[in-house]
Amino acid sequence: MALGPAAMGYDRAITIFSPDGSLYQVDYAFEAVKRGWTTLGVKTKSGVVLLAEKRKATQLLDVDGIEKIFMLDDHVGCTFAGLASDGRILIDYARSQALQHRLIYDEPISIEYLTKVISDVKQAYTQHGGVRPFGVALIVGGIDKGKQPKLLMTEPSGQFMPYYAVAIGQGGYTATEYLEKNYKEDLDIQSTILLALRALMATLKPGEKLNYSSVEIGYADVDSGTFKKLTTEERSDLLQKI
Amino acid sequence: MALGPAAMGYDRAITIFSPDGSLYQVDYAFEAVKRGWTTLGVKTKSGVVLLAEKRKATQLLDVDGIEKIFMLDDHVGCTFAGLASDGRILIDYARSQALQHRLIYDEPISIEYLTKVISDVKQAYTQHGGVRPFGVALIVGGIDKGKQPKLLMTEPSGQFMPYYAVAIGQGGYTATEYLEKNYKEDLDIQSTILLALRALMATLKPGEKLNYSSVEIGYADVDSGTFKKLTTEERSDLLQKI
Amino acid sequence: MALGPAAMGYDRAITIFSPDGSLYQVDYAFEAVKRGWTTLGVKTKSGVVLLAEKRKATQLLDVDGIEKIFMLDDHVGCTFAGLASDGRILIDYARSQALQHRLIYDEPISIEYLTKVISDVKQAYTQHGGVRPFGVALIVGGIDKGKQPKLLMTEPSGQFMPYYAVAIGQGGYTATEYLEKNYKEDLDIQSTILLALRALMATLKPGEKLNYSSVEIGYADVDSGTFKKLTTEERSDLLQKI
Amino acid sequence: MALGPAAMGYDRAITIFSPDGSLYQVDYAFEAVKRGWTTLGVKTKSGVVLLAEKRKATQLLDVDGIEKIFMLDDHVGCTFAGLASDGRILIDYARSQALQHRLIYDEPISIEYLTKVISDVKQAYTQHGGVRPFGVALIVGGIDKGKQPKLLMTEPSGQFMPYYAVAIGQGGYTATEYLEKNYKEDLDIQSTILLALRALMATLKPGEKLNYSSVEIGYADVDSGTFKKLTTEERSDLLQKI
Amino acid sequence: MALGPAAMGYDRAITIFSPDGSLYQVDYAFEAVKRGWTTLGVKTKSGVVLLAEKRKATQLLDVDGIEKIFMLDDHVGCTFAGLASDGRILIDYARSQALQHRLIYDEPISIEYLTKVISDVKQAYTQHGGVRPFGVALIVGGIDKGKQPKLLMTEPSGQFMPYYAVAIGQGGYTATEYLEKNYKEDLDIQSTILLALRALMATLKPGEKLNYSSVEIGYADVDSGTFKKLTTEERSDLLQKI
Amino acid sequence: MALGPAAMGYDRAITIFSPDGSLYQVDYAFEAVKRGWTTLGVKTKSGVVLLAEKRKATQLLDVDGIEKIFMLDDHVGCTFAGLASDGRILIDYARSQALQHRLIYDEPISIEYLTKVISDVKQAYTQHGGVRPFGVALIVGGIDKGKQPKLLMTEPSGQFMPYYAVAIGQGGYTATEYLEKNYKEDLDIQSTILLALRALMATLKPGEKLNYSSVEIGYADVDSGTFKKLTTEERSDLLQKI
Amino acid sequence: MALGPAAMGYDRAITIFSPDGSLYQVDYAFEAVKRGWTTLGVKTKSGVVLLAEKRKATQLLDVDGIEKIFMLDDHVGCTFAGLASDGRILIDYARSQALQHRLIYDEPISIEYLTKVISDVKQAYTQHGGVRPFGVALIVGGIDKGKQPKLLMTEPSGQFMPYYAVAIGQGGYTATEYLEKNYKEDLDIQSTILLALRALMATLKPGEKLNYSSVEIGYADVDSGTFKKLTTEERSDLLQKI
Repeated sequence: MALGPAAMGYDRAITIFSPDGSLYQVDYAFEAVKRGWTTLGVKTKSGVVLLAEKRKATQLLDVDGIEKIFMLDDHVGCTFAGLASDGRILIDYARSQALQHRLIYDEPISIEYLTKVISDVKQAYTQHGGVRPFGVALIVGGIDKGKQPKLLMTEPSGQFMPYYAVAIGQGGYTATEYLEKNYKEDLDIQSTILLALRALMATLKPGEKLNYSSVEIGYADVDSGTFKKLTTEERSDLLQKI
Repeated sequence: MALGPAAMGYDRAITIFSPDGSLYQVDYAFEAVKRGWTTLGVKTKSGVVLLAEKRKATQLLDVDGIEKIFMLDDHVGCTFAGLASDGRILIDYARSQALQHRLIYDEPISIEYLTKVISDVKQAYTQHGGVRPFGVALIVGGIDKGKQPKLLMTEPSGQFMPYYAVAIGQGGYTATEYLEKNYKEDLDIQSTILLALRALMATLKPGEKLNYSSVEIGYADVDSGTFKKLTTEERSDLLQKI
Repeated sequence: MALGPAAMGYDRAITIFSPDGSLYQVDYAFEAVKRGWTTLGVKTKSGVVLLAEKRKATQLLDVDGIEKIFMLDDHVGCTFAGLASDGRILIDYARSQALQHRLIYDEPISIEYLTKVISDVKQAYTQHGGVRPFGVALIVGGIDKGKQPKLLMTEPSGQFMPYYAVAIGQGGYTATEYLEKNYKEDLDIQSTILLALRALMATLKPGEKLNYSSVEIGYADVDSGTFKKLTTEERSDLLQKI
Repeated sequence: MALGPAAMGYDRAITIFSPDGSLYQVDYAFEAVKRGWTTLGVKTKSGVVLLAEKRKATQLLDVDGIEKIFMLDDHVGCTFAGLASDGRILIDYARSQALQHRLIYDEPISIEYLTKVISDVKQAYTQHGGVRPFGVALIVGGIDKGKQPKLLMTEPSGQFMPYYAVAIGQGGYTATEYLEKNYKEDLDIQSTILLALRALMATLKPGEKLNYSSVEIGYADVDSGTFKKLTTEERSDLLQKI
Repeated sequence: MALGPAAMGYDRAITIFSPDGSLYQVDYAFEAVKRGWTTLGVKTKSGVVLLAEKRKATQLLDVDGIEKIFMLDDHVGCTFAGLASDGRILIDYARSQALQHRLIYDEPISIEYLTKVISDVKQAYTQHGGVRPFGVALIVGGIDKGKQPKLLMTEPSGQFMPYYAVAIGQGGYTATEYLEKNYKEDLDIQSTILLALRALMATLKPGEKLNYSSVEIGYADVDSGTFKKLTTEERSDLLQKI
Repeated sequence: MALGPAAMGYDRAITIFSPDGSLYQVDYAFEAVKRGWTTLGVKTKSGVVLLAEKRKATQLLDVDGIEKIFMLDDHVGCTFAGLASDGRILIDYARSQALQHRLIYDEPISIEYLTKVISDVKQAYTQHGGVRPFGVALIVGGIDKGKQPKLLMTEPSGQFMPYYAVAIGQGGYTATEYLEKNYKEDLDIQSTILLALRALMATLKPGEKLNYSSVEIGYADVDSGTFKKLTTEERSDLLQKI
Repeated sequence: MALGPAAMGYDRAITIFSPDGSLYQVDYAFEAVKRGWTTLGVKTKSGVVLLAEKRKATQLLDVDGIEKIFMLDDHVGCTFAGLASDGRILIDYARSQALQHRLIYDEPISIEYLTKVISDVKQAYTQHGGVRPFGVALIVGGIDKGKQPKLLMTEPSGQFMPYYAVAIGQGGYTATEYLEKNYKEDLDIQSTILLALRALMATLKPGEKLNYSSVEIGYADVDSGTFKKLTTEERSDLLQKI
């Protein structure tokens, strides 16, 4: 068995650099993200849409009871791909930070600042010993003061970037390709939702179909400025349209 | 002896990622679950049933004195497969959390929230050094406010999911197969108990038999909203029926 | 030398899982138990008997000064096999817990609860780094409120189970075989003591003999509800009877 | 595979010396810097210019939302190459230190002292166990009291030095060559900005072009003594001039 | 070189079990005891005698200034074999515990309890990481309340046992053999001292001789109930008698 | 590749002895010193001179902004060779200690005591785990009370010694040779400075030249008793003289 | 290369026992002692003499400024061989303990007790993780109350012993041989000093000579009861006599 540099030990100790300046543990944590269910976000002038696929390993799984789109505050939601239990910890943290901000400043937390706050926790878990990085990427989206739609994705390294559209998880590569070809900035919110849904459909294998149970959708439109999740009926209607 | 990636060390240090984004220690903890006694839960419209097998290694074991179905609060119970001593620690924790919730909010804790609280402890034991993950999976079931039956299973990783029916431990695979074929959502509570019992029977080897000592059964029906365990007589009667 | 999975390192770091879900350090701690002096407990309707063998490595050892049967509280005693110094620490802890219970609740501690309290300490030593598991198994026996005889054995893992009869240490396997064949639940307390003693005798090598110095016996009968140790004379008389 | 001294383990444990007196982890952290986007600073008599390239991995990246030039205080800014999340932590720290200085002393912090404060944190992360060095180099520039332009670069080791001009990241070597040939100390601020921009252009591959989205520019001129970032329009105008 | 299980690493990490349930570090600590100067204790009906050999590595060693028999309290003394610096720490601890007992309870500490207190410290050093076991065995002897002579030996593991006579260190095996043959329980105190001295003499190599400088003797007789050390003259007289 | 004892692991763990009683990490830290810029000190009856070379890796380095000679207090200065960031930490510490001494005792700190205080920190970093030794040697020089010139060098081990003259860094060996041949104790301060400068010149490669930018000079003369650094003009004049 | 047991790892981890009961790290620390400058102490009826050699690695070393004989209190001094920086830490500690003793008890500290206090620190550094043993042996000598001369040597293990004469460091073996042949207990103090000096001379290589700079001498005579160091003149005179 040939041993590349990865196998020589740089990837086994937490938070150390390899000779080429990589942090392998952080790279491997991203692999956990790539193995997650497909998750994506789209930002247009009319608002932001978050969309997450849910897959049934067994018929006995009560997939409707699984939440993949989370409201963080009135104006902002998030979704994730990767280790679900890691994601939960960060989402709890984000919610408490958003709430605290409202209590102290009496106004909604800025979406970029909220993303930064999550990402700072992630960074700390890549630099200090005795812990492993978070194996999860979060897509955060919502409407900031001044009717500003915002969409950001935060990586296991703690790096975060703003996107027009972003897709992660198993179908992330295919969905990104679809979005690169079809994205337009001036869609209305309904069309934005449909674009997101079609991007997810592009990742399905032949014969696979989406139904209201296998997708969760959240959106925040510039007009209302609030983040809402689609109900089962709304999702059914939407899927029938397509 | 051929060394696969597991043998190259990714599985020996606690809480680190392998190149494919796995946490081997967490996967191995799940093996401890698979070696446990068969345990299962079924949720129908009429309520939730938890059922655990008890096996006698020696005749001298006082199997009636062993508890495998635990009441966490009036409305919710749980069972587990895996390391019994690990399970005990989490059950104690769950009980104190449920009690504390009643004291502070004067109402029963939501079953999903209670499961989340247990799972957050589990997650922490997969991300921080100096500890090992919990080698136990818990099935939590009961009736929430509004006569909502709930059934959730929490894995060693700290991930938890809602199920219509779920089976873990040595006979978990066979019992799951049985349940997938025979599960119906609109059974009455008595039929739900019988379904659970038949799923366990499907895991017996030829010649093996269940008796009142080798199975423990708990249930919560929508009408009463409380979690109860079957007495020895009730179990005897039930087994005679089948 | 062929290296099995144990030799590949899963058994050297404390508190980590092997690929098959075992905790080797805990398994090895049980080996220390198996190397201890033979110790056993028997529970019948009339009460509970604890019995421990004492072996003389040298004539100069003042074997009468060695205590192997310990009173934990008026109604409960214990014995152990394995590392004597580890056992002592747990027995001290158990005594202080029993005393504290009396002080706070003004009633004797339940025997199962006392065993749980010991076992929780043991569990912690298998899950946290920087310590090794306890290399000792304790047999705890006594009479609970309502004249309930109780007999439990707690393993190095922190798992504990109730038994009708249980034997550990060097002669544990042979004594268990004897007890499986000869155990009856409705013996009077005197016959229970004799059964325990005969189980120990079954473990002697040809030519070996028991005398009052080589065995220690404690019992708790349902009538008195208290735990007592046999005096030298009582043990002599008993051995002469057999 | 031939193993040089690096592969013999001196580079795997944090914060230890190799036989030749190197700290490999610190050297490797510098590799992360070399892999970052090109970033540079130029100091002339008229002021200081900081310039950072931004590259689009995908069209969907909202590159205008990414900040690479940061104001630390009215009179001083900074940019970085390397791990963005590491950089963010240090910039937050620098800002709070600058603010605190103003609050306590009622005057702007000296730029060299501010750089030293950042660098002391970096040094600590190279000497103490349980952490890794910061994988980021910061270029700090601004105008000190007395109209003194200042430009410093701080390395992952915690060493910092003053420069007339300095370039780091992927194009660092080429940009440095360009600056060594074309640097003059007595340029006006406009010409200084142009020099910085041309140094970045020298690093472009054939066919690549800069536009207002792919570069961020900040400067502090001796006259105003304040640090400003160029707007989108200013950058467009500038690029058109060239 | 053939590697037995010891060489496979079970003996290098502190406080872990080998597959056969041994704690190698504790076993090795006992080797340090076996390499110490010969030390022994004898208990008869008339009292307890402690005796320690002192060997001169060089003529320049002021052997009379070395103390090997220590008074712990009026009624109890001790001696040790193994690492002298480890022994000193435990003796200091024992003295402070004995003193504290007198202060709090206004009566002498029981000798077995004092030995237990020392042994509990030893046990802790075998179960917790970051420390090594104590490389010393102590022989503790004296007269308890009710004119009870007591003699106990505590091992590096923290196990302690009562003895009629016990010998450790380089000549421990030979002295034990002598004592096993010649020990009688009803000697007067003078004869007990002579027995101890002759047991030490049995360990001398041909040509070696004891003198008042090469042996230290302490005793506690039942009549006085106090622990005393023999003076140089008393030792000279005694040796001349033999 | 032949492995000497160094390669067998004694040099990889911090703060442990090799079989020959060496602390390899400390030896390796000294290698970092040897790779530093040449630095030297000379003490004569008239005073003490410290001198440090500064080398330009690139023309863009603002070498005049780099400080290598540091005033610690009015009467004492220092310079260093090795890791600049490590040196900075110790110099900050030395300054605060000198200041504190003035505040508490209202008199200048003794130079040997100040050096001891720095060296005690260094020693601690060689004996405790979780840190590496300081990779820097400091030359401390000045005038103590009673017009006593003092010159000391402190090594990474924490050992410090007084010198008539001492040179470290890349040119340390050559400069030491020059000083051994040319040192005289009764030079006036001007001649002492020239001796130091000539010793540095002896380390230049053929063709290399010193200019006012490539050397920094500090001195303390017995008459004034204060430590001063030469200005750019003074250095230019001096170099022209030679 | 043949690997003895030392090379198998018992000597690399701090504070663990090898199979033969050795603590290799402590043994290796003693090697550092053996590599130190020769140091010796002699005790006679008239007093105690401490003597330390000082060797010049370079002519530029100000050997007169190096102190090797240290006063700890009026009545007691010490010297050491081994790592100078380790010795300094222990001497500082000893001085503060001696001072504290005077403050609390208003009388000089007993020399054996002072040595014990130093040795307890040394012992702790051999039993707890995260530190290395002290690589230094101290010779402590002085006059106790009642005109008692005392001479003790404390090893890296924390063991200490009283001596008539003791020599350590590079020439320790040869000096010990000389002292064993020539030591007499009833020398006057002047002759004791000469004996010590001749013992050091015995360690010189052919052609080597002692001068007043290469030796430091301290003594405490029974009459004055105080510890004094010889001045340069006294040392010159003494050497001329011989």
